[in-house]
Amino acid sequence: MPEQTKITLEDDIEPVADAFEDASVIGLSDDSISTIVDALHEEGNDDHLDLINDLSVPDTADLIHKINEEDRQSLLIDRKVKLDPQVYPYLDPDVGKSALSSMSASRVAAIISELDSDDALELIENLDEDFQQEIIHKLSAKMRVAMEEGLTFPEDSAGRLMQREYVAIPQYWTVGKTIDYMRVAANDLPADFSDIIIIDPLYHVVGEVPLNRILRSKRTEKLEDLTYDSLHTIPADMDQEEVTYIFRREGLSSAPVIDNDNRLIGIITVDDILDVIDEEANEDILKLAGLGRGDLYRAILSTTGTRFRWLFVNLMTAILASFVISMFDATIEQIVALAVLMPIVASMGGNAGTQALTVAVRALATKELSSTNTFRVIWKETIVGTLNGIGFALIMGVIATVWFQSVTLGLVIGAAMVLNLIVAGLSGAGIPILLNKMGSDPALSSTVLLTTITDIVGFFAFLGLASIFLL
Amino acid sequence: MPEQTKITLEDDIEPVADAFEDASVIGLSDDSISTIVDALHEEGNDDHLDLINDLSVPDTADLIHKINEEDRQSLLIDRKVKLDPQVYPYLDPDVGKSALSSMSASRVAAIISELDSDDALELIENLDEDFQQEIIHKLSAKMRVAMEEGLTFPEDSAGRLMQREYVAIPQYWTVGKTIDYMRVAANDLPADFSDIIIIDPLYHVVGEVPLNRILRSKRTEKLEDLTYDSLHTIPADMDQEEVTYIFRREGLSSAPVIDNDNRLIGIITVDDILDVIDEEANEDILKLAGLGRGDLYRAILSTTGTRFRWLFVNLMTAILASFVISMFDATIEQIVALAVLMPIVASMGGNAGTQALTVAVRALATKELSSTNTFRVIWKETIVGTLNGIGFALIMGVIATVWFQSVTLGLVIGAAMVLNLIVAGLSGAGIPILLNKMGSDPALSSTVLLTTITDIVGFFAFLGLASIFLL
Repeated sequence: MPEQTKITLEDDIEPVADAFEDASVIGLSDDSISTIVDALHEEGNDDHLDLINDLSVPDTADLIHKINEEDRQSLLIDRKVKLDPQVYPYLDPDVGKSALSSMSASRVAAIISELDSDDALELIENLDEDFQQEIIHKLSAKMRVAMEEGLTFPEDSAGRLMQREYVAIPQYWTVGKTIDYMRVAANDLPADFSDIIIIDPLYHVVGEVPLNRILRSKRTEKLEDLTYDSLHTIPADMDQEEVTYIFRREGLSSAPVIDNDNRLIGIITVDDILDVIDEEANEDILKLAGLGRGDLYRAILSTTGTRFRWLFVNLMTAILASFVISMFDATIEQIVALAVLMPIVASMGGNAGTQALTVAVRALATKELSSTNTFRVIWKETIVGTLNGIGFALIMGVIATVWFQSVTLGLVIGAAMVLNLIVAGLSGAGIPILLNKMGSDPALSSTVLLTTITDIVGFFAFLGLASIFLL
Repeated sequence: MPEQTKITLEDDIEPVADAFEDASVIGLSDDSISTIVDALHEEGNDDHLDLINDLSVPDTADLIHKINEEDRQSLLIDRKVKLDPQVYPYLDPDVGKSALSSMSASRVAAIISELDSDDALELIENLDEDFQQEIIHKLSAKMRVAMEEGLTFPEDSAGRLMQREYVAIPQYWTVGKTIDYMRVAANDLPADFSDIIIIDPLYHVVGEVPLNRILRSKRTEKLEDLTYDSLHTIPADMDQEEVTYIFRREGLSSAPVIDNDNRLIGIITVDDILDVIDEEANEDILKLAGLGRGDLYRAILSTTGTRFRWLFVNLMTAILASFVISMFDATIEQIVALAVLMPIVASMGGNAGTQALTVAVRALATKELSSTNTFRVIWKETIVGTLNGIGFALIMGVIATVWFQSVTLGLVIGAAMVLNLIVAGLSGAGIPILLNKMGSDPALSSTVLLTTITDIVGFFAFLGLASIFLL
């Protein structure tokens, strides 16, 4: 790229920085998308081919995501459009799967062959098993072995995440020999790497050396003298959440992956971890709202179906709460004010509980919560619930007294409020911790359980106290 | 570390991997924590000093987080305990702030001086301004300038995130000259780096070269011929969320940071981005539940206070919903079944809306939602809401008919359910998009607005239809 040395500083040197001044211009602009879509719609106009060819890989992925279902289909099956194979790993899993599923096995095999083994595996693992086998049989021997072995590792494990392209050097080599080797083997090395794995003759991992240590050392220095003193090897079947935790905790830039015989089989780099962190945090957000995974790009019917299931569970708990109310129908018939006020008690409990619950779910996900501080956290949330309960009891007690001209009603709603907010704090922190102890995913069902409890306790306490003191 | 070459493979080579077989052992075990706490409590017993000294940096941070407030204080102010300065950047911001605030300015300055500039800034930016100045005056000239300049950048900007320790090489240098320089300057180079920044004589960024490109090239090769063709420079005042987006989108491992004159002032590496991604996703989760930031380690009173504010807003909206109910008190007095069933309609609307809202908030955060697909997403959510509305109308219609022996009541609750779920889908997707357009944070207030709407519409539709058709 010799032209980079010729450009004048003022107008050319920061193309990216300039574009960023208007934040909306990062990525592909909406205007460019419409231009391409317009060309796509015009019969006999092939302008979109050139336009798409000019896009970078992330821009192409953006385009495919943001156009509608119909345009996406016609773009992805159009054989005149030659997408860079690197685009496919960038796609949302659902979009990528439906794109690849509509192609022939040989076309998919051709795409996969151009990718790194980790990207290839990510694409292939989502496809139907028969189609997977068809594709794998069309791959080169090396890629075929990589895919077949990769698929034997559990989903979301280190073995699925790792790259098989790494640089491993025997421990007795010197810095000089290593540099000479890398110059000779330049074209066979992975496209990008920043650490070298040091191995013994049996392919067991001895350590890791970051490239900068090699560059700052004398040619005569032995690699084994440059290796890091703390070595973090990752077993291939370790769950990706654990892997992420280790990377973050220890500040790793890469880690070797080993098989059951402790032999080196791959490497995980911090870039892979970036995606996992995002994915896991995103999953927690979505699960708290009863969504299995993001469905932005999913078809309407499939979206409706997955949402229906969660809403159905919620309907059942809402009906349960209604049964509680119906136990007091005679009381409500006499004092309609109770029907007016009762949703307030239940709703405040649900909201206060959700706050405690969210803190606990996150603390569990980041491993900040363990048996050492479990009781302290539950205790703290209960106290916070009590204090806020007292505060809102006073506020709501006064409001109810003034509104319905009844001090007793004010006292009843105040007492119910305190009770429900104590329960909310206790169960908001306690439910996720309990689910976690039982081996369930705390993000997934905590919310339903919590609102069931706060609804039932809220209605029962308020209407029960009312039927005792107001009738 | 020559002993690494002597260890026998079977029992020593994978200490980390072995420990990981029981997932709970990653990090500091609860047993180790109790041992240290016990020693801490024993008068005249100084065992905890050695135990703490033996801990790694992340383990020490774990210990401090998980012990109770009182023990934490006595540990942090105990002058006999000499914590590794690297521990402080690992601490939760609240814990770190309260620890540093209780020390003298010179002690904090001594800690800060041992850190990289980005870590130092992260600690200092949280402290009170007067104390900040006091500390800064006790720093070395170099660190003082770094801190003073760093604090001029906006909070959460690239300038706060970047490291001032980088390797910049003139564009006309060869690979050979660069390697020779790095061997001579070995001790002055940053502790870790994997890219070299290429600059012109005016300190403008020309490009970046990853170390592996240098290692695989001949000594005579010029650096300017090895630079990446696409260059991503980051202006120092860019928001960290944008920076993260660029790193993820372009798959960067590092990027140079420039000032207003386009001069190189620092570097951001992917490790920094890891923390930001986690932080931002975490923030979204917490905001959706009405929490400004994680308060796991915060004191009870301060936690109660921040939660109170959000709950108070919720109380106001709950009272608003109660007003709607009170408009129909005469109707409820005649048909108590309405009071029993009305929470179901409101709750289903809230839950369905939250699903749509969560998808939209996440899509906005990851920039997957822009004007190209805004209307498609809102439209889709409305259709999904309608379809699920019809489904639950049928289910709830039958249940209500059987339960209260009234077909009309079944029809009324069915109609209210359809209406509320349509509104839920529409506003669940629409509210965050609208807030985002208005420049507000969609994660922060979407939930309150949504539940206010679904409560009011739910109660109004159900009770309103009932008063027309059932009286």
